[in-house]
Amino acid sequence: MAEESWQGTNLPRVGGFNRAVVLDAIRRGGGVSRVELAQRTGLTAQTMSNIVRALIADGLVSESGHAPSTGGKRRVLLQVVPEACSAVGLHLDPERITGVLLDLAGGVRHTASRRVPAGAEPAAVISALARTCKQLVSRVDPDEVLGAGLAVPGPLDAAQRTVLSPPNLTGWPAVPLADAVSERIGLPVVMDNDATAAAIGERWAGGEQRAGSFAYAYLGSGVGLGVVLADRVHRGVSGNAGEIGHVPAGGTRLCHCGRRGCLEAYCSMRAIVADSGGGDGGPIAESYARLCRRAAAGEADAAKVLRQAATRLGRSLAAVVGVLDVDRVVLGGPALRHVGDLVRDRVAAVLDAQVWAPEVRPVRVQTALIGEHAGAVGAASLVLDRSYSPRLTTLLGAETGPDVSAGRR
Amino acid sequence: MAEESWQGTNLPRVGGFNRAVVLDAIRRGGGVSRVELAQRTGLTAQTMSNIVRALIADGLVSESGHAPSTGGKRRVLLQVVPEACSAVGLHLDPERITGVLLDLAGGVRHTASRRVPAGAEPAAVISALARTCKQLVSRVDPDEVLGAGLAVPGPLDAAQRTVLSPPNLTGWPAVPLADAVSERIGLPVVMDNDATAAAIGERWAGGEQRAGSFAYAYLGSGVGLGVVLADRVHRGVSGNAGEIGHVPAGGTRLCHCGRRGCLEAYCSMRAIVADSGGGDGGPIAESYARLCRRAAAGEADAAKVLRQAATRLGRSLAAVVGVLDVDRVVLGGPALRHVGDLVRDRVAAVLDAQVWAPEVRPVRVQTALIGEHAGAVGAASLVLDRSYSPRLTTLLGAETGPDVSAGRR
Repeated sequence: MAEESWQGTNLPRVGGFNRAVVLDAIRRGGGVSRVELAQRTGLTAQTMSNIVRALIADGLVSESGHAPSTGGKRRVLLQVVPEACSAVGLHLDPERITGVLLDLAGGVRHTASRRVPAGAEPAAVISALARTCKQLVSRVDPDEVLGAGLAVPGPLDAAQRTVLSPPNLTGWPAVPLADAVSERIGLPVVMDNDATAAAIGERWAGGEQRAGSFAYAYLGSGVGLGVVLADRVHRGVSGNAGEIGHVPAGGTRLCHCGRRGCLEAYCSMRAIVADSGGGDGGPIAESYARLCRRAAAGEADAAKVLRQAATRLGRSLAAVVGVLDVDRVVLGGPALRHVGDLVRDRVAAVLDAQVWAPEVRPVRVQTALIGEHAGAVGAASLVLDRSYSPRLTTLLGAETGPDVSAGRR
Repeated sequence: MAEESWQGTNLPRVGGFNRAVVLDAIRRGGGVSRVELAQRTGLTAQTMSNIVRALIADGLVSESGHAPSTGGKRRVLLQVVPEACSAVGLHLDPERITGVLLDLAGGVRHTASRRVPAGAEPAAVISALARTCKQLVSRVDPDEVLGAGLAVPGPLDAAQRTVLSPPNLTGWPAVPLADAVSERIGLPVVMDNDATAAAIGERWAGGEQRAGSFAYAYLGSGVGLGVVLADRVHRGVSGNAGEIGHVPAGGTRLCHCGRRGCLEAYCSMRAIVADSGGGDGGPIAESYARLCRRAAAGEADAAKVLRQAATRLGRSLAAVVGVLDVDRVVLGGPALRHVGDLVRDRVAAVLDAQVWAPEVRPVRVQTALIGEHAGAVGAASLVLDRSYSPRLTTLLGAETGPDVSAGRR
């Protein structure tokens, strides 16, 4: 998919873009005055005043009290109206579907969850996703629901809104998942890979803590990466940026994808369970959770296996930091439960030793703000992000990456 | 260095941005009509007409004949005026300084070259760079020279315009190279690492062939990477994006930087010469060139050593492609001389085997359009790019990366 050349811009586009910039600054600021907003966005007080008036009239923003007095007139603070709208997020994992209903402020209002149907046939999975979505929408006024986001294992054919034979969903052909779910639920659906969705959720929830650039390693059944560069999600030419699970990671072990030496051959839940002596034949996620609880309880052999995996992960992330030059690595996803600190500390130690030019490029390693529902919250954030975040395409007209919402929105 | 949040924009900024977009489209189109320009940039015919008139009045663009008739009135073609201005590019390599004078169309008008002074003391190197620059400027009207670009081995402290102890320049402390050279030559100086400079030069010279996204592997004494995402150079938070030479590359060999397993431990000129049985104690670049000529002449052992290095490079590039999701890898730099096809074919084979999801993400591997002067041409392109390429900062006011020209421009 070719990307577009630079495009010029014009006044109506500037208006829409500035409105999104202001809403984003209010959302991230969590109680900011018009004066602060003008400073942060570089817009004039007059432009700011007009935009804020329109946002209040549309019910997206409200005045929420006053800032402490600094001598003169006390400033009115602005915040987004959480219940102005909401979005459903659905995360499809090999073993479980998790759903959330998220409000405009990024708060989780409802959750739902069900097992992936045995065999994980596409038709049954589509039904299960639709049922989870309807269950969530039934809890609120359906008119306030903007749409649903799907976070799925990659790779995707973003242009076709299709999931392509993910190695974690054995036997799937190319499945046009987004349109199939959209038809069943009667709502627009956006779709992205789970790591990119989780990174967007983290950015949406994190306010100023997640401003700028970061690499978000999503640790679930497999390992993925979401890339945020200068406040913008980087999706890449085909919409599959951030693949680190199945690229060479310096080993020779056979991976479940058929290649050798992939990071997931060492760092998937399945690989880590195998390294610890194997599971009991039950669901891998449960064997993995037991291993993590043992490590958290201080069992040295369990901790050692997890540290070895974290070392591999850290080396791959050192290479990622080298190429992207981000100053933060965020670790998130369900595989961190019980062992977030252990994994973070090990990854940080590897990065300390291996990141290039640390004197000008210190790298912080942090665990995610969003916990185990990162995939589902991220999926819902896809909808909010597409509707309300500033986008260069608003300004410049052309997509610089694939439009994952091409179908219905 | 923190990156800025989204900023709003306004009319004067839009005007400057649109002008840069149009000039860029004319330069890359190499003979385009106003109608084509309006289509490409999304601007109205009226806006386009006004911008073109101003560019012609400023002497940057000229009418250059007519397009073949398609029935109606023949369209007037526009092109940039090559001699409207020029820029000096200086490439500092461990063994040699190479300089070029580049015109606005990207043509090389003059070249100059000298050995790096024995011992490579910073003061002597600064003098040598300044002399090379003055030699080039003396060949033209000095008023037409916009400034000079420096391409240097990383890492850089971009904010301080300082070169930080590059492992390829033994014994260098932090040297404020850009300002020191600028003082000596009386011209503004921009500086970047050699791989990023070479990628910008490739984008500047390549027109539509280098539109969109690509990763440019610069193969010189060491190995660097320039990253272009959706027509924009990605520099990263500290200005050191694209480091692949000194990140873990899956081995354990001791690297000259003191770490183990870096790509440069296998793919630097020095490492490749050592793998071939060692040089003769003379300059490494000469031993390496002899090896390459032997490989090009069909000597199997020489070709084998180079293919082994290319395999390592290919694996690192497969990981880069996985993270960035670019659809082209460009290989350039002096280390490819005589062996461009051999290295390209080997890298392409590795990428074919290891890139994730090739069905939606085919990756082409190409040798660079700019040959052995890639570093110096890239350095000059830094100046042209900064002066004339569309930049988001023109539109949005804030730098989204470090301003490498902070000193004098």
